Amino acid sequence: MQSNGFVYLNGDIIPTKHAAISPFDVGLLRGYAVFDLLQTINGVPFQLDEHLERFRSSAALLGLEVPATNEEMHAAILELLKRNGHDEATVRLVLTGGHSPDGMHFDPSTPTFLIITHPMFAMPEHYYTEGAQLLAVEHRRELPEAKSTNYLTWLRNHHRLDETGAVDLLYHANGYVSEAATASFYVVKDGRIYAPDSGVLHGTVGTMVLELASEQFEIVRGPITMEQTLAADETFITSSVRGVVPIVRIDDHLIGSGTVGPVVRTLMGLCNEVMRADASA
Amino acid sequence: MQSNGFVYLNGDIIPTKHAAISPFDVGLLRGYAVFDLLQTINGVPFQLDEHLERFRSSAALLGLEVPATNEEMHAAILELLKRNGHDEATVRLVLTGGHSPDGMHFDPSTPTFLIITHPMFAMPEHYYTEGAQLLAVEHRRELPEAKSTNYLTWLRNHHRLDETGAVDLLYHANGYVSEAATASFYVVKDGRIYAPDSGVLHGTVGTMVLELASEQFEIVRGPITMEQTLAADETFITSSVRGVVPIVRIDDHLIGSGTVGPVVRTLMGLCNEVMRADASA
Repeated sequence: MQSNGFVYLNGDIIPTKHAAISPFDVGLLRGYAVFDLLQTINGVPFQLDEHLERFRSSAALLGLEVPATNEEMHAAILELLKRNGHDEATVRLVLTGGHSPDGMHFDPSTPTFLIITHPMFAMPEHYYTEGAQLLAVEHRRELPEAKSTNYLTWLRNHHRLDETGAVDLLYHANGYVSEAATASFYVVKDGRIYAPDSGVLHGTVGTMVLELASEQFEIVRGPITMEQTLAADETFITSSVRGVVPIVRIDDHLIGSGTVGPVVRTLMGLCNEVMRADASA
Repeated sequence: MQSNGFVYLNGDIIPTKHAAISPFDVGLLRGYAVFDLLQTINGVPFQLDEHLERFRSSAALLGLEVPATNEEMHAAILELLKRNGHDEATVRLVLTGGHSPDGMHFDPSTPTFLIITHPMFAMPEHYYTEGAQLLAVEHRRELPEAKSTNYLTWLRNHHRLDETGAVDLLYHANGYVSEAATASFYVVKDGRIYAPDSGVLHGTVGTMVLELASEQFEIVRGPITMEQTLAADETFITSSVRGVVPIVRIDDHLIGSGTVGPVVRTLMGLCNEVMRADASA
């Protein structure tokens, strides 16, 4: 049941079938691990530095250190992409606390460092042309500033996404929205873009898009209520593998007119321009 | 860096060094896994049926099914204990969602099922004679009724336990206490025992002790505030590997007189009686 191809494990690129994670790995026994995910554009890792920086930052929040330089990781990713022969891929970096004989203690100086690739999956085009739906779920991620491997709530609800065709979950708690399960979340009202400023993961594409958008739109950073969200003109999510996706429905509630609005359309254009430019660079 | 000895993996007992968890296991990539932990008394698994029942219940909350009968698991545990040659051991059962090619989808009919053993570690005797300390941490476990592998908050704070000598963390949120990170938590006031009735893991030893205690003491089930906890006469934790441990200090706050109280002393006696009886059975 192993995927074909190669993976990077603790410094070496090896056949996946020989890549053995110990049953005593604290990433398995206690979910003590962080990861990051990036995509390629024309085979080139997009926003590589931003992802490696976030990966290090997530690791630090767990008291772990990424055991490789950016140059080493860049070289490993390129070699892995070549060996796996993907046209386009998503690249997943995973760092765990490593071996734990008692399921409690581990030596942070000997982490498990894994890089794997997945073939790129195409997002349905209608998400972008007609807008997509989120399902609201009461939840706040533990240690939200770290991209930990803990996705219990998302995976438990994943069948609901498959059933409804919704693109992701929208996490909210105590009346405030935070982020989608696998994406950043933003709200547009009266031409302003509202962005949560704490209790969320730093989004690499979201940050890029907001920076570009700030030349045309006012960006308001701070907590966002669910009430504010449902009364928004437009809402959208951003993620590394999906770019900007317009959200026109949260559960059964239509946002604004229920169609892709002008601000999000502009942001999708800005995002696509950069990604196309990067692809031809 | 593998532990010596043998593990049980998907139906077979194999040398640990040959036990390979796939880098594509959703238990590793997404922390999608549950476990249970029991101890042996004179080499015999204590409260085996209760632990297997809880393991199945945790699995069901994640949409997973334990792929073995109780008899098969019992036989596998006994064989594993024999091969690993432990005098006494803790036995850990782990069930993940299995292989996930995209880090998102997996087939719940092909889970990863692992059983490993750890040599029993002795609890310092002074925890029982003088009482122990908990460190309060604002946290509520995700899906608390399931014993999932997610222990991010506990492991991030583990160095504080090592530094202070505290036995565990006490989780609290919105003014209410729930449980210790790796144990159930109870409060004693005016001769009554207070037990949280929801939002906590079902404790196997805790349930047994409360049942025995109910012949002498009134048991009050319901939410417990932190205020109530700090004003308690006595507090204690229960766990499979530690039995009843008196808690005489939470952070720097002494509980009652700061010494082991009469009710908890009685409960420790009741618990020890059962465990001795079980040992000589």
